[in-house]
Amino acid sequence: MKKNNLIILKIGGSVITDKEHNRKRINKKNLKRIAKEIAQAKNKNGFSLIIVHGAGTFGHKIAKKFNLHQGYKNNLQIKAISDLCLDLKKLNIEVIKYLKKEGIEAITFKQSSAWQLSNGRLENYNLEIIRNYLSLNLTPVLFGDILVDKKLKFSILSGDQIIYRLAKKLTVNKVIVGTDIDGIFNCNPKTNKRAKLIKKVNGKNINNFLIENSTSIDVTRGMNGKVCELINLAKSGTESEIINITKSNILKKALLGQNGLGTIIKTN
Amino acid sequence: MKKNNLIILKIGGSVITDKEHNRKRINKKNLKRIAKEIAQAKNKNGFSLIIVHGAGTFGHKIAKKFNLHQGYKNNLQIKAISDLCLDLKKLNIEVIKYLKKEGIEAITFKQSSAWQLSNGRLENYNLEIIRNYLSLNLTPVLFGDILVDKKLKFSILSGDQIIYRLAKKLTVNKVIVGTDIDGIFNCNPKTNKRAKLIKKVNGKNINNFLIENSTSIDVTRGMNGKVCELINLAKSGTESEIINITKSNILKKALLGQNGLGTIIKTN
Repeated sequence: MKKNNLIILKIGGSVITDKEHNRKRINKKNLKRIAKEIAQAKNKNGFSLIIVHGAGTFGHKIAKKFNLHQGYKNNLQIKAISDLCLDLKKLNIEVIKYLKKEGIEAITFKQSSAWQLSNGRLENYNLEIIRNYLSLNLTPVLFGDILVDKKLKFSILSGDQIIYRLAKKLTVNKVIVGTDIDGIFNCNPKTNKRAKLIKKVNGKNINNFLIENSTSIDVTRGMNGKVCELINLAKSGTESEIINITKSNILKKALLGQNGLGTIIKTN
Repeated sequence: MKKNNLIILKIGGSVITDKEHNRKRINKKNLKRIAKEIAQAKNKNGFSLIIVHGAGTFGHKIAKKFNLHQGYKNNLQIKAISDLCLDLKKLNIEVIKYLKKEGIEAITFKQSSAWQLSNGRLENYNLEIIRNYLSLNLTPVLFGDILVDKKLKFSILSGDQIIYRLAKKLTVNKVIVGTDIDGIFNCNPKTNKRAKLIKKVNGKNINNFLIENSTSIDVTRGMNGKVCELINLAKSGTESEIINITKSNILKKALLGQNGLGTIIKTN
């Protein structure tokens, strides 16, 4: 562990919800195993941790149906906002429960009560409460959410933008982005058997990815936006790694400091 | 409705949780009826509403056991904080569900993610997000919670302090404090059959209550603190009424503008 002892972990919504049947249900098997791996690594190396989870099947459907990411259009969206918030709360409570079962003293930080957006991007955001939670050895848990937006009235703050924002302001040792694929491929691995995993995105090839971003890299919904945030993060000096946390022990190894388990994103 | 159209409603934790058996269970019957009465009144008069609920059996026991209101003493409290937050979240999600079933587009505002205490009192607290929720016709729901405290590391923010703080900064038409007793009595109605309900606390008798506060008025745990906050509120110009919302239709009548249903607290 370099710099200090803080790790930011993104848990992809598709990993912990029932993506296969597109139902608003928890993927209990994955969530239980992930909580166990986190607890085992944390007990061994004693790092501080911030967890950010996505919405998966609990969020994307209704957000898309009512175009909630585009801001206020009509009054039908108001019920949709209230419905979405309840669903996200249900998912978040499950994540907290599973973490606590493994002895992780998790605590929700609900950024929609604290922060506001402006045209979909966070402007001012205070991390003092999160820093206080960390100093008390609590593990803050954040999640992709719908926020008040100064220009659009409301908009979506993705889990991916949250990790970028957190890592930019805090001194972070490592950012781990847990998804349901092995990392970034040179083409879509689900339609092309010859797709090759790119082990490292760095100063040499980073511009290619930025340009080809929307075609070759977007192997799954969300991967495109994810890569953009992580490249921004790399430019500001924090490296990250995209790993597949649907496979056993990959997350545990990554938390314990092992690299090269997926795609590392850095600028040098 | 005078001034404007905003009502702040406190729902006592003892009303919506299983106070009788001191169990961490919802009082479904009360919660369902209360949600219905709110919806009926809101549909009729179309006021804006902020709801603040207490913790009841979901909070007081663990908070007291680990002295969480007194701030940091030992590391055993850290697990207690995480446990308490999860329990409060479980209660809040039930309140939101019941309100939504009746068509109220409720949305949680989790003040522990937004505000900090200093020696148990709120110092700076921003209501911009709550104002935005109201302007979108959402009903913000807050609750008594554990917050970061600049002096004590953490402390408890009671639902009663929240209503005082909200009412002080917002232009409020009415503050309704729903409890499980009829109002303020001249002595304890549970031990003295001759106890008399005081219909009005005003400029003439307010000082008596402040002085005799800890003896004659404290008829139920929390009533003492409640009255202090409400007297402060009256002094800053907002009247409030303590009513018994375990009885049918009292809340509905109060929301529709009727006075004299319990004890009114005002300075003139």
